[in-house]
Amino acid sequence: MADKASEAFKEFREYSVAEFFRKNRQMLGYSGAIKSLTTAVHEYVTNALDACEVAGILPDVYVELRKKGEGYLLIVQDNGPGIPKEYVGKVFGTMLAGTKFHVFKQQRGQQGIGATGVVMFSQVTTGKPTRIITSTGNGMIYEALISIDIKHNRANVEDAKEYPGQMRGTRIETELKGVLYQRGERSPDEYLRRTALANPHARITWKNPDGVVTVWDRALNVLPKIPKETKPHPKGIETDDLMYFAAHTKARTIKAFLMNDFSRISAKKAKELETLSGVDFQKKPSAMTWDEAERIVKAIKKVKFIAPPTDCLIPIGEKELEKAVKNVLKPEYYKIITRPPALYRGGVPFIVEAAIAYGGGLETESQKSNGNDISIKIMRFANRVPLLFDAGGCAITKAVNSIDWKRYGVTPQTPVTVIVNFTSIHVPYTGAGKEAIAEEEEVMKEIRLALQDAGRRVSAYLSGKRRKAEMEKKKRTLEVYAIPVAQSIAAVTGADYEDLLNRLKRIVESRYHEITEEPEPEEPVPEEELEEDADAEDV
Amino acid sequence: MADKASEAFKEFREYSVAEFFRKNRQMLGYSGAIKSLTTAVHEYVTNALDACEVAGILPDVYVELRKKGEGYLLIVQDNGPGIPKEYVGKVFGTMLAGTKFHVFKQQRGQQGIGATGVVMFSQVTTGKPTRIITSTGNGMIYEALISIDIKHNRANVEDAKEYPGQMRGTRIETELKGVLYQRGERSPDEYLRRTALANPHARITWKNPDGVVTVWDRALNVLPKIPKETKPHPKGIETDDLMYFAAHTKARTIKAFLMNDFSRISAKKAKELETLSGVDFQKKPSAMTWDEAERIVKAIKKVKFIAPPTDCLIPIGEKELEKAVKNVLKPEYYKIITRPPALYRGGVPFIVEAAIAYGGGLETESQKSNGNDISIKIMRFANRVPLLFDAGGCAITKAVNSIDWKRYGVTPQTPVTVIVNFTSIHVPYTGAGKEAIAEEEEVMKEIRLALQDAGRRVSAYLSGKRRKAEMEKKKRTLEVYAIPVAQSIAAVTGADYEDLLNRLKRIVESRYHEITEEPEPEEPVPEEELEEDADAEDV
Repeated sequence: MADKASEAFKEFREYSVAEFFRKNRQMLGYSGAIKSLTTAVHEYVTNALDACEVAGILPDVYVELRKKGEGYLLIVQDNGPGIPKEYVGKVFGTMLAGTKFHVFKQQRGQQGIGATGVVMFSQVTTGKPTRIITSTGNGMIYEALISIDIKHNRANVEDAKEYPGQMRGTRIETELKGVLYQRGERSPDEYLRRTALANPHARITWKNPDGVVTVWDRALNVLPKIPKETKPHPKGIETDDLMYFAAHTKARTIKAFLMNDFSRISAKKAKELETLSGVDFQKKPSAMTWDEAERIVKAIKKVKFIAPPTDCLIPIGEKELEKAVKNVLKPEYYKIITRPPALYRGGVPFIVEAAIAYGGGLETESQKSNGNDISIKIMRFANRVPLLFDAGGCAITKAVNSIDWKRYGVTPQTPVTVIVNFTSIHVPYTGAGKEAIAEEEEVMKEIRLALQDAGRRVSAYLSGKRRKAEMEKKKRTLEVYAIPVAQSIAAVTGADYEDLLNRLKRIVESRYHEITEEPEPEEPVPEEELEEDADAEDV
Repeated sequence: MADKASEAFKEFREYSVAEFFRKNRQMLGYSGAIKSLTTAVHEYVTNALDACEVAGILPDVYVELRKKGEGYLLIVQDNGPGIPKEYVGKVFGTMLAGTKFHVFKQQRGQQGIGATGVVMFSQVTTGKPTRIITSTGNGMIYEALISIDIKHNRANVEDAKEYPGQMRGTRIETELKGVLYQRGERSPDEYLRRTALANPHARITWKNPDGVVTVWDRALNVLPKIPKETKPHPKGIETDDLMYFAAHTKARTIKAFLMNDFSRISAKKAKELETLSGVDFQKKPSAMTWDEAERIVKAIKKVKFIAPPTDCLIPIGEKELEKAVKNVLKPEYYKIITRPPALYRGGVPFIVEAAIAYGGGLETESQKSNGNDISIKIMRFANRVPLLFDAGGCAITKAVNSIDWKRYGVTPQTPVTVIVNFTSIHVPYTGAGKEAIAEEEEVMKEIRLALQDAGRRVSAYLSGKRRKAEMEKKKRTLEVYAIPVAQSIAAVTGADYEDLLNRLKRIVESRYHEITEEPEPEEPVPEEELEEDADAEDV
């Protein structure tokens, strides 16, 4: 039997995380030819926007897709800060390498996988490396071909060269096969259009395989504030997290650790926690045992804390969203709703912004909601990143579908688009693919409140519109009848036809004088005209 | 600007795959307190079954859950081949280490993550290591406490000791917090019950937190055949796979590589591929370029190949499933359907087995199907592993719900259970969590065919049952009337009441004589009795 065990174990091996993701690329979003293409575009564009914003640069992002052989060449270029040459391999050729892993900050990317994921996908579908051309603006341009040594999860850097040149930013050229470019909801076109909508400070240029260039120009010339790195709020912390932070803190005592590394823990609260937990807060944080950490976490549950600061959250902003909506959607009517900051899971701050747009440049799109066809188009965003996939699994979609839109006058023929952006330092995605937001209770509540508010506004507009339309109709009807009436009265009384017609029209006008959103009380008809009418015979 | 770039990169770090999974534990199935518990049980039980089967041992698996402090202690013990001490750390304390990663074989586990995942989850919720006690049956028992050095993805082995003792197998004791034991569909009880159903050769013992012991004993004393490792079929291969295999083959020429390492490539087919692709098949496989590999893959698409051998697939088996269903479900009626082997995606073999069970020990469970409440309970399996989660996303559920069960006489009151086991060398899961099977066209077709067949069988049974029930009813009704009729005739004619009653009863019997599943033609009433009736007056 000992032989059998050894027998089984002779095949035992260890695998790199790159091998793991090569086998499981659907976990990174590369499943299906259409989705894989949009995923690749998404990864590079979000990196470009993040890099520019961190460096305080108004982003110019250029995206091109060119047919090449049986596949495509994807080019993404930005005007960002560039990448120092010693990091190029790590950024593009190593899985789980990045700056964002353990940061408490509102950000688009989270895992140190995205950029390398595209290189991996390109490599396994075409066998080719990805070309990187980058400069930090120091007069020298660095260029290299990057691929991944999958077995060891490290970059292969080939053909590296440096040469003088004036450039600042990064240009990526990567070939892709097994992808499909198809216009529609899940295409790069739609992804970039929505990215422009959520990032009015960015200028996005898109050249499609037919050579057609679309430019979404900046609607603002001001960068959004950079989301500040924030401290975790005690209410969100589990024992394992506390142990991890304690192992990495600069503080010398547990008391200082808690007060400095977390938000809202004052000296007074720290004392409360010390008493409740029975732990000696003068100890070094690294000496804290699991049991002690657990006692502190339990004490935290019993203490009240002020809600976390929410200045770490930078939503798109009301004015900015307004400009973007006008620019991109060109609707007849729109309204922006921004909810106040809220918390989910007791300690994670978030903000919901919603926009509702009606008519004008919008097209209808059929969508099943509550078993009825409601033509509401939903655009979902998390931290300004468009979510194009797994709509059915997303809290935003579920919230929109939970609203009884008929009450707000939205019928299957009403062309309405609802935009929801969810901003947080930690987006509760349902899965690794980051496609859909989980149905956290407080999140659903805030989205619904925003939608109901939006619903009421559009309802008022639509009723005003309907009333106005009705009144216009009545007016035109009366005007149509005014002619024969005037003719008859003229024929009978010999009065002047033109004069009668004008008077009749004025009467109609005065009853439906100014068609505005608020119906105004009817102006009384001038006495003189009434008397004259009274004299005329009934016709 | 160069400063800004360097500034951004000073936070640049690399992360281990263990850190990645600690942050993303929901990808391993640890999301939600109920599901996390069942996931932990699942990982250890599947490892135990796999280990026993590979070593040719009839599995005895013991599972116990004990309340401990605010959490639980989970104990899993098997009578398998044991683990050599030098591998214990790698098995339980290292992510992406295992024997199953690149094997083309029907197997339960796939990734080298499961066992370590439980240790990780235990560690982050309790701070404690997992105790392993194991022996290969060589008279020495090895015991150690295993935890994971998350930063470096390697095991911490503490308190290791070896001592003499008679034991063969592995015992795991792991503490868990943040889990919830709750009876029901997603509990360890249900998981183990279904595991017993799909593995009639295993003996499973379960002791719950109340101390109650349930034993699902073996229904067979024969191990299922071990699924053989099989060679990939050319139709399933992509260029990247071909390059990978070429880099690892022992063959010296491309021709030998293709003929030896793949199924169904004969010398003749190899010649066809050589001609079509224009590649020199005398070259060394390691010298094959991407371009050449791509040409070979294209050539493969144009050539016909015999379907892959399916002896690599070992479904549960009709007799075995029958025994298991009788044992575990104790139904009034059941039928097993085994579909012939089929292929999906052109080259991946699979087999669908279905069982339908009715009445008897089954309870009804309401389930929405096509908008109607159909009380069909569905038990899903992939390679004999129960799938308890994400039912909505699974091909099996979708197939069951696509059947119009009313046509088969299954109403909301009908207590029916449908069991589907999907066997393949590669289960097309929808996601990393391995909870649901993707809706591949051929897979859906086979499941539906199996279900329709099962539906027809149960329909025949139910109609027979209904007819029988109707006849019983009529019979009882007549018998009830026979009494007053006999009394009246007796009173009128003076004939003997008892005698008349008996005759009447015999007439009734003869019309509804033997109530069987197939209605038999009515036996004619004996002439003599008819004439006597004719003489009697109408009453």
